[in-house]
Amino acid sequence: MSITQQFDNVTLNTQANVYFDGKCVSHGFTLADGTRKSVGVILPARLTFNTGAPEIMECVAGACRVRLPGEDAWRSIAAGESFSVPGDASFDIEVDGEPFHYICHFG
Amino acid sequence: MSITQQFDNVTLNTQANVYFDGKCVSHGFTLADGTRKSVGVILPARLTFNTGAPEIMECVAGACRVRLPGEDAWRSIAAGESFSVPGDASFDIEVDGEPFHYICHFG
Repeated sequence: MSITQQFDNVTLNTQANVYFDGKCVSHGFTLADGTRKSVGVILPARLTFNTGAPEIMECVAGACRVRLPGEDAWRSIAAGESFSVPGDASFDIEVDGEPFHYICHFG
Repeated sequence: MSITQQFDNVTLNTQANVYFDGKCVSHGFTLADGTRKSVGVILPARLTFNTGAPEIMECVAGACRVRLPGEDAWRSIAAGESFSVPGDASFDIEVDGEPFHYICHFG
């Protein structure tokens, strides 16, 4: 799969979002059509995230394992791969070794 | 001083730069005129950075203390304030409590 290496013509927020004592750091940005996204990093950890809106998480570097809502099994996600999470749900993510770099697409 | 809250019409790199085991995470971006900058976060730590090009570090949230090349004293930097570092130099930065959010202007 191809990897999204950059976004053109965006408005970038300079202040980051810092979650889990810095285990997850992201910067929000907005496309020209108003679509909001974020780019971020998750450091080695096992974390549980809660979604508001549905999300598609696209891995651009590194890797993770993820356990999606209602699933018992963990699946592996590598660079170029994505996973989808429904809104108002929670999911587990585990990063081991190298940081996991992602794009979060909302909605 | 005013705080730069966003940059418009930029090209954003989706992969982050991760330094010091994640104590510093930044995302690079490019302005329409080709100028390169980055936005980043430093988590609570005392770190020594080495510059290539000269840098101006602008604090957009949080705070830090910094000891610049050739100086013995530490100075405090708050949101809306900046400090300059020459190229090919090193400086010490200490973040305590809340993360330090910054824009790095090169050159």
